[in-house]
Amino acid sequence: MKKYRAGIVGYGNVGKGAEAALLHADDMELFGVFSRRAKDGMSTLTGAPVYPYDDAAKYTDEIDVMILCGGSAGDLLNQGPHFASMFTCVDSFDTHARIPEYFTAMDARAKDAGKVSVISVGWDPGLFSLIRVLGVSCLPKGADNTFWGKGVSQGHSEAIRRIEGVQDAIQYTVPVESTVDAVRNAEQTQFATRQKHTRECFVVAKPDADQEKIRETIVSMPNYFSDYDTTVHFISQEDLDKNHGTMPHGGFVFRTGQTGQELDSSHVMEFSLNLESNPEFTASVMVACARAACRLYDQGQTGARTIFDIPVGMLVDMTPETLRKDLL
Amino acid sequence: MKKYRAGIVGYGNVGKGAEAALLHADDMELFGVFSRRAKDGMSTLTGAPVYPYDDAAKYTDEIDVMILCGGSAGDLLNQGPHFASMFTCVDSFDTHARIPEYFTAMDARAKDAGKVSVISVGWDPGLFSLIRVLGVSCLPKGADNTFWGKGVSQGHSEAIRRIEGVQDAIQYTVPVESTVDAVRNAEQTQFATRQKHTRECFVVAKPDADQEKIRETIVSMPNYFSDYDTTVHFISQEDLDKNHGTMPHGGFVFRTGQTGQELDSSHVMEFSLNLESNPEFTASVMVACARAACRLYDQGQTGARTIFDIPVGMLVDMTPETLRKDLL
Repeated sequence: MKKYRAGIVGYGNVGKGAEAALLHADDMELFGVFSRRAKDGMSTLTGAPVYPYDDAAKYTDEIDVMILCGGSAGDLLNQGPHFASMFTCVDSFDTHARIPEYFTAMDARAKDAGKVSVISVGWDPGLFSLIRVLGVSCLPKGADNTFWGKGVSQGHSEAIRRIEGVQDAIQYTVPVESTVDAVRNAEQTQFATRQKHTRECFVVAKPDADQEKIRETIVSMPNYFSDYDTTVHFISQEDLDKNHGTMPHGGFVFRTGQTGQELDSSHVMEFSLNLESNPEFTASVMVACARAACRLYDQGQTGARTIFDIPVGMLVDMTPETLRKDLL
Repeated sequence: MKKYRAGIVGYGNVGKGAEAALLHADDMELFGVFSRRAKDGMSTLTGAPVYPYDDAAKYTDEIDVMILCGGSAGDLLNQGPHFASMFTCVDSFDTHARIPEYFTAMDARAKDAGKVSVISVGWDPGLFSLIRVLGVSCLPKGADNTFWGKGVSQGHSEAIRRIEGVQDAIQYTVPVESTVDAVRNAEQTQFATRQKHTRECFVVAKPDADQEKIRETIVSMPNYFSDYDTTVHFISQEDLDKNHGTMPHGGFVFRTGQTGQELDSSHVMEFSLNLESNPEFTASVMVACARAACRLYDQGQTGARTIFDIPVGMLVDMTPETLRKDLL
């Protein structure tokens, strides 16, 4: 059987997760990892070869799909269009406000190259987005609610690390249980920001830093913390390293709505994820979408796609006959 | 804006649900209901016209999609292929064992007619199927578990009604809460049939019937009840009519699995539905899929499709741009 050959661009936690996910995909194989650190003699978990980032263009005939594992903020705005102009690609671009412009850029490059690019996949954007659309489709008269956590927000953690006197920090986003229950029981659908999530910060202060001033700076930080009930714990670096080094995450998507001529029957749709490793799961979704990207390309399609454009059956290594027989 | 014109075939609870769902779909309108009871002067909830079942062929140019609301057991095996040879159709065929042969029959008729038929939609088969595939795609190393209920099983209720001495009956399928929790907490994934669901029966016995004999016949009935812990309550017809007349249902789909090179990170994906009206929600999913069927037909596609073949974005009355901006 022909296997799809995948390349991985970027070798952080998501890149490593993609490498592992490809081990468990019988119809795919890893060609290699592309990294700016290749020259430093970097090695990989599975011993997969490492190529210099700038050499990717040499391998356009040998790679069916590139899995772009860079972050949205720094990398993808440039890296995405660069690779989309050479390869069929998949990425996890998650800066919501810039998705329309990113889609437009990726679509143009992918069409010019005669390739496919599946953008913004993972679990949110990604699976959660798909469930939100499914919710609207089945319950057009209704309301959405998405909750995230408990899990680490990298953006919020970094915002704390930038504060003067802070040596290190981790921020957890925590859904408010009573609010989740109110949605689940179809009691209420509209909430203030403060009612949906709390923020819990574990901070290592530099010696002699003013902890009260750090706390005050965090809880009053606009956009990031001021609209939330925020708790700040000061701990040692040792405690942070020992007890806050894993990357669990997850969340809930709800659609609550009514059907019937008079809209008098209520329904609740709930989707939740409880993830021990956010980057590994994200990478696993990306690998499934990489398979779909290869199949769309094989069909002669070109341009950018999102999870909304992909038939779910294309995500798995099973024939349509087997899917209908075993999973329908 | 052009609206898709839908016909409804069959005017039971699902047919009435489809009529109501079409009221809330701005891009669709109801052409009319086709029923064998048309000659009896049957009327509809919204005043939509009623046509004789056998006159459908006259309206092939006026109807974009037929929503087939007959039951799997009696109606669809014949009705499906009959209508698929004239119209783009959607149905909720749910006899799992016969889906492959039904798909083949529908695919042949739809291709001959140059139409599309989306089969086996609703919530299971349908949304639950889609989630099962999504689960396999993201967690290929893992296990599925589906739980149904609490809700009425029509098949089991009818099996009881056929017992001598039974005047009327309703059977509820009930998921075992401790088992659902064991899956949710990733403690266990393999269970005996008896561990996953219990069956609760509310039976109206005929006067002078031997209730103990009825109870014994129910709990020992092969396939239907003998593999389950079954409770039988004898109640009056008045009680049954008053307290067991609504049609709630729902259930849970879980995918539990592992990622990472050594498969040492655990994840739980859960999807649940809590439905006040099973037929109205089923009809609402069918209407969303009817929209997708029309769009597939507009693209020039022909043949049978399942929920696995339909990009989720096709299910909703929103542009791809709006979807990406608001729901991705």
